[in-house]
Amino acid sequence: MTTSTPVLPPTGTLRPLGLDEVRITGGHWGERQAVNAGATIGHCLHWLEALGWIGNFDRAAEGAPFERAGREFADSEVYKLAEAMAWEIGRTGDPALEAEFVRLTERIGAAQHADGYLNTRFGGPGQEPRYANLEWGHELYCYGHLIQAAVARLRTRGEDAFTAIARRAADHVCEVFGPGGVERICGHAEIEVALAEFARATGEARYLEQARLFVERHGAKTLPEAGFYYQDDVAVRDAEVLRGHAVRALYLSSGAIDVAVDTGDTALLEAVRRQWDRTLARRTHLTGGMGSQYQDEAFGRDFALGPDRAYAESCAGIGAVMTAWRLLLATGEASCADLIERVSWNVLAGAVAPDGRSFFYANPLHQRTADADPPPDAALPHVRAGGRRAPWFDVSCCPTNLARTFAQYAVYLATADDRGVQLHQYAPAAIDTEVAGKRLALSVATAYPEDGAVTVRVEANGGGERTVSLRVPAWAEGARVTGPDGTARPAAPGTYAEVTAAFAPGDEIRLDLPVAPRWSLPDPRVDAVRGCAAVERGPVVYCAESLDLPGGDLDELTVDAATAPIERGGRVLVAATVHDRPDGWPYGPAAPEGEGKPVELVLVPFHLRATRGPAAMRVWLPQE
Amino acid sequence: MTTSTPVLPPTGTLRPLGLDEVRITGGHWGERQAVNAGATIGHCLHWLEALGWIGNFDRAAEGAPFERAGREFADSEVYKLAEAMAWEIGRTGDPALEAEFVRLTERIGAAQHADGYLNTRFGGPGQEPRYANLEWGHELYCYGHLIQAAVARLRTRGEDAFTAIARRAADHVCEVFGPGGVERICGHAEIEVALAEFARATGEARYLEQARLFVERHGAKTLPEAGFYYQDDVAVRDAEVLRGHAVRALYLSSGAIDVAVDTGDTALLEAVRRQWDRTLARRTHLTGGMGSQYQDEAFGRDFALGPDRAYAESCAGIGAVMTAWRLLLATGEASCADLIERVSWNVLAGAVAPDGRSFFYANPLHQRTADADPPPDAALPHVRAGGRRAPWFDVSCCPTNLARTFAQYAVYLATADDRGVQLHQYAPAAIDTEVAGKRLALSVATAYPEDGAVTVRVEANGGGERTVSLRVPAWAEGARVTGPDGTARPAAPGTYAEVTAAFAPGDEIRLDLPVAPRWSLPDPRVDAVRGCAAVERGPVVYCAESLDLPGGDLDELTVDAATAPIERGGRVLVAATVHDRPDGWPYGPAAPEGEGKPVELVLVPFHLRATRGPAAMRVWLPQE
Repeated sequence: MTTSTPVLPPTGTLRPLGLDEVRITGGHWGERQAVNAGATIGHCLHWLEALGWIGNFDRAAEGAPFERAGREFADSEVYKLAEAMAWEIGRTGDPALEAEFVRLTERIGAAQHADGYLNTRFGGPGQEPRYANLEWGHELYCYGHLIQAAVARLRTRGEDAFTAIARRAADHVCEVFGPGGVERICGHAEIEVALAEFARATGEARYLEQARLFVERHGAKTLPEAGFYYQDDVAVRDAEVLRGHAVRALYLSSGAIDVAVDTGDTALLEAVRRQWDRTLARRTHLTGGMGSQYQDEAFGRDFALGPDRAYAESCAGIGAVMTAWRLLLATGEASCADLIERVSWNVLAGAVAPDGRSFFYANPLHQRTADADPPPDAALPHVRAGGRRAPWFDVSCCPTNLARTFAQYAVYLATADDRGVQLHQYAPAAIDTEVAGKRLALSVATAYPEDGAVTVRVEANGGGERTVSLRVPAWAEGARVTGPDGTARPAAPGTYAEVTAAFAPGDEIRLDLPVAPRWSLPDPRVDAVRGCAAVERGPVVYCAESLDLPGGDLDELTVDAATAPIERGGRVLVAATVHDRPDGWPYGPAAPEGEGKPVELVLVPFHLRATRGPAAMRVWLPQE
Repeated sequence: MTTSTPVLPPTGTLRPLGLDEVRITGGHWGERQAVNAGATIGHCLHWLEALGWIGNFDRAAEGAPFERAGREFADSEVYKLAEAMAWEIGRTGDPALEAEFVRLTERIGAAQHADGYLNTRFGGPGQEPRYANLEWGHELYCYGHLIQAAVARLRTRGEDAFTAIARRAADHVCEVFGPGGVERICGHAEIEVALAEFARATGEARYLEQARLFVERHGAKTLPEAGFYYQDDVAVRDAEVLRGHAVRALYLSSGAIDVAVDTGDTALLEAVRRQWDRTLARRTHLTGGMGSQYQDEAFGRDFALGPDRAYAESCAGIGAVMTAWRLLLATGEASCADLIERVSWNVLAGAVAPDGRSFFYANPLHQRTADADPPPDAALPHVRAGGRRAPWFDVSCCPTNLARTFAQYAVYLATADDRGVQLHQYAPAAIDTEVAGKRLALSVATAYPEDGAVTVRVEANGGGERTVSLRVPAWAEGARVTGPDGTARPAAPGTYAEVTAAFAPGDEIRLDLPVAPRWSLPDPRVDAVRGCAAVERGPVVYCAESLDLPGGDLDELTVDAATAPIERGGRVLVAATVHDRPDGWPYGPAAPEGEGKPVELVLVPFHLRATRGPAAMRVWLPQE
């Protein structure tokens, strides 16, 4: 049986489940998947056609010089959408989408050269030669997304014309970039993680070896200048922290974990783990957002985490999930699933509008002014991405990347091992898998995170004693777990609460997580938010929007973090003061306070920001 | 008599003095001028030759296609150096420099087209056509610096071959961009301020009219997209605050003030003043640095003033001095001179190394890690500008800009009006001018700001009763002024202390400024430094460097701002604690403090940072 899942390591602590084994049956993430299928995938197809990024393949296939549309990496958007379609077809079997996929496959395949080379920007008549610009050309990056789409296809439908295209491309890459060939890397990591998984999906060891070579070549300075930007400054196994372009860094980390797991290279795995731990402690925003600098779309230095210029790119959120998921499978540590949850709710969920047709490229935690909406029918320059979601960007990596992630999202909910099933993310779901060769089927009912109760019902158990493990998030002080015998016990935050029994159908396990809104304070070394507090509710970060402070100015707010936030009528409220401070030279012997007026401040989930209209917004609220 | 000064408005509150009327005779700024003359100008000449940026003119003159060196605006560096040389020749009469200037003039002139067009990047064989790319081509920007150099030459030596080149270029600009011509602007303001001054220097009214047209065209959206970046989003007279690229914004403001003054357009003057006031209150760092974003080298939003990603470009400091000086001449307000002092000590003085041969492009107030030195013999990519000064940059606007500013710096010390002389900046100096047609000569002796005493001695007074006005900085609470009769009285901060008498030679006036180190606190709306304090001593901002905390980590410091900083043996010290905090997920219900160890922390002037070796550095120190 092929497991229809994007990451399938041969070894590890936990075994991932496929889309055929775990389904989301409702709730927030069910709605997300429905909107993704019903709106986002079609929206992306529309834009890729309208802008000519799919058309590039048709014109390249004609073999004459043409004016190519889009940036160097435009091909990759088509591949990422193909991956989204492939998972979606795997999930729902939608025949219309299948027909669309087949048409897209034909158009892509027509542009492939006889030797497997495939790129609409290089190597054709009148174009720059192949691999003339490895640092910025993105050719290998594009192959990476082609190959990841092929993995999705292989694991949902098996071999077809699409996977054949990817095989030819992967073989070509091994020939050109293998030992004795062009011993360099691509300026944007992605080929590593793709080839490693393609090796798992096809059984071709040469792909893993080529992934390993690419990982090991990072730091050999085979690209010109600015090595840290594309992680060419230091070998992966020698680095201390994630750095440079955040998406590149996280994709590379994912590939390095895969290579480490498949080659038994524990030193490499430990190296990535070390970098990850320091990145979480010193380079990650409250939302789980990574990449604190607009400049270079990059990780900033340790503790450089300004909320207003946080880039926290949507695609870096996806990269963080990719890395955390691989570490979770390898180690089984709850903190990895905690991070996936944090990023899912506070980066991914907010990066796409509720209607699935507009997107945030960057996800800063502070929007200083209420920017006007971007034009509804134009691609927004991504570096100008401001306060509202836009339908498309000049560099438009997030829409298709989000589409493929939401289509596959069910797999992140649960895993299995020889003892039982582990629940990592809580949503209404149906799980039907095998444990030690025997069926174990569970259903999950929950209104989490609005409500902290998660009920797991055993639907079938073909084996005897089984262990169901439920993640207790690190913030969940006071959580309790109740076994099928009705006995409740405390569940320690930051671990998995295990319930072991010879389960019978109808048995229920219940986890109660404390989801009352709470204040969170920053590490005192995070300079930019010193003296501030933020509200979280379960995994959901909250924010203040100027819409809820009519006539007021978010710059003039202070809050009383000694008083707990309250929940009233489904709304989260905190005690605050609005000041009226005079302008003048802003530095002096004393900081004059203007007159203060007490207000009860409404907070809204960060992922729902900017959905009611243009608004100033802030997550971190200055304390009085 | 022509006054040898860069800005000479026909009307205004104060009359600027020329380099022949005010000389710096020693102290910090005397040393700066000596190093500028003895090292920086030669250093710039060397690099401009070595990189071929001067050679571009030779090759353009040959009239055949050639591979041009440098960026679009490389010509402007040659012109800014020519301006530095012209002021320096005016100041010292150095014959070797004069000979160099004449040789440079010949090489520049040889590349000028018959109709006055002059640019080595456009308009030649094999090059893009003239004005094909107004938004990024910088052709008018380059003319602006050519013309400013010609102003320097006109006001120090009179008409010559150089000024003739500039006249031909200015006439060409008026013909091409005048009414009915190309009614657009340059993507980088500079032509406005240059043409307005050239009109004053030559008496040609058409140059002022052309400057006016360019100022008024800003906001008409004659350039594509991203209008705020080059101030093409809103008309100058309608804008509320400085925004977009900081250097562009400040050069444009300077030109707008000139146009407003010369055309009697008080509404335009008020508009710039309004923008300036809000920029000081909400968009300026403690150092006077402007431009808080690396992205776009731009002003950030109100109160977005993160010290670690402060760009505070050296050239924006020069632009701030240009704007403040023009406002000072127009209004006579002490706050304008305060800002010039703040920027001079904390941006300009630190932007060049004590030896005059390396430079900071950006001047952030927080350097998180001790970066290695840049290579001594390569131009550093300006966006990578890190913790140490570099000899040159790919975009190398600061070295030549600093050179021209230091060469003319004496003019910022004093002005005159019909009643007397105003002293704005305190340095050892000799002033010899006329007040209402009669000679008034003063000498200034001071070790300011190490010592707060400024003694002004009357050397000659050809008139009767005269007023000497001494700026009392806004921070100088407790200042006192003593008249020639020996009576002392309080001098109000933020004003000019006036001493009026029928001065006789040998009379002395003394100003005592309180220069003990002091804590400054930020406006509570400046999010990024909330909870921090900084030390200033007179106009000089201080910083902590990791070199003074052996084995310690600047991220782990807190200070006690309730205890005044002390001065001991010429060193400034504050009471601090070094913590040892554990790493982990950095957000939670409580911010755990590690164990603290009290230390006496040495602070050094910010302008001397990074002169002893690589170091982490911070101006804003977290309070306990």
